[in-house]
Amino acid sequence: MQVKKGQSIEDASMQMIEDEVGDHQYSNMEWQIVRRIIHSTADFDYINNNKIIFHKDAIRNGICAIKNHHSIIVDVNGVIGGLNKQNPIDFENDIVCNISRSDVAELARKEGKTRSQAAMRMAVKDMQDGIVAIGNAPTALQEVIQMIKEGIARPALVVGIPVGFICAAESKEELRSLDSTPFITNIGRKGGSPSASAIINALYKLVRAESFP
Amino acid sequence: MQVKKGQSIEDASMQMIEDEVGDHQYSNMEWQIVRRIIHSTADFDYINNNKIIFHKDAIRNGICAIKNHHSIIVDVNGVIGGLNKQNPIDFENDIVCNISRSDVAELARKEGKTRSQAAMRMAVKDMQDGIVAIGNAPTALQEVIQMIKEGIARPALVVGIPVGFICAAESKEELRSLDSTPFITNIGRKGGSPSASAIINALYKLVRAESFP
Repeated sequence: MQVKKGQSIEDASMQMIEDEVGDHQYSNMEWQIVRRIIHSTADFDYINNNKIIFHKDAIRNGICAIKNHHSIIVDVNGVIGGLNKQNPIDFENDIVCNISRSDVAELARKEGKTRSQAAMRMAVKDMQDGIVAIGNAPTALQEVIQMIKEGIARPALVVGIPVGFICAAESKEELRSLDSTPFITNIGRKGGSPSASAIINALYKLVRAESFP
Repeated sequence: MQVKKGQSIEDASMQMIEDEVGDHQYSNMEWQIVRRIIHSTADFDYINNNKIIFHKDAIRNGICAIKNHHSIIVDVNGVIGGLNKQNPIDFENDIVCNISRSDVAELARKEGKTRSQAAMRMAVKDMQDGIVAIGNAPTALQEVIQMIKEGIARPALVVGIPVGFICAAESKEELRSLDSTPFITNIGRKGGSPSASAIINALYKLVRAESFP
């Protein structure tokens, strides 16, 4: 496949994805997000076996959180690595990642939790009206769900797309069963920080395009 | 699947991968690397359609580069995000990622290259006897191959596992055709920074286990 003159690599890639996927069941705004995940992973399973699932208020809430300068809390630095750096600057969103903090390691040891769990618990205040984006650790997602059930975490949107063999699929199932909290997640074991970053990058694109009615 | 008492999540995951894969064609050391890629992606395509391919000297060279304190040059910050942070400290390997440097953006503009290409060209000296790990940008891998062909880049190992629809598969094919430079790569479009990080993390594991004969 050649890139046509004047067409960016990204545009050409998106066109290939459109052509190969054909019809799908997503709304226009949902598709902007799903297509970007496929672009980041070259994995069409995200519309099949590992399908992306949206809570009905997920995109609206994500867009509002960004526009209203709320924080984005991520589980690993890899998610930050995949973000378009200018977006959070322009919209004044703090990106919070506690995983490498020394007091997190200490808290984890003391409470018999994983570092991912401790890092999420330490970010509970940042979550208020913000976006939580989990791309790696199922235990981080489980901890967020637990804090939501305890009534202490109130994020506007949870992006839950951790990867793995132990509890990844289960943690996403639990996320989907939350009535109160909008989510973007997927079915099964697959996921990863590039997918989480892609979802956040796509939300910013939607904000910039002002395509939200 | 439950984690047995005293078994880490990682060990339990690796056991599940072993059980599900069964027989395979990789050597023992190769398998340590491939298994870690599957662990990071939950994607068994890396032993099927998107199979990992090793140059015969790849693992030996990777291990030597680490032991001899050479640099690891990566294309995106996402690869750094997925690395075990203690390893490069313990073995005194510089991790070089130029993609966010302002002079890289400038060089790219001036020479009509992508930022990924410019970032690789700027790291040519760091590459000497080191490891180049490309997890995202096909153009970064193409630039490294070009510099190898020009005779100015002499890495000990190229890990080439970029992802994408434009030139990703082609860049890997070109890498596999290099006689002179050991590589770890895969077939097709799939790849990503978690896979690149997994390969580097696995190489450090091999060094630490002193399992290299």
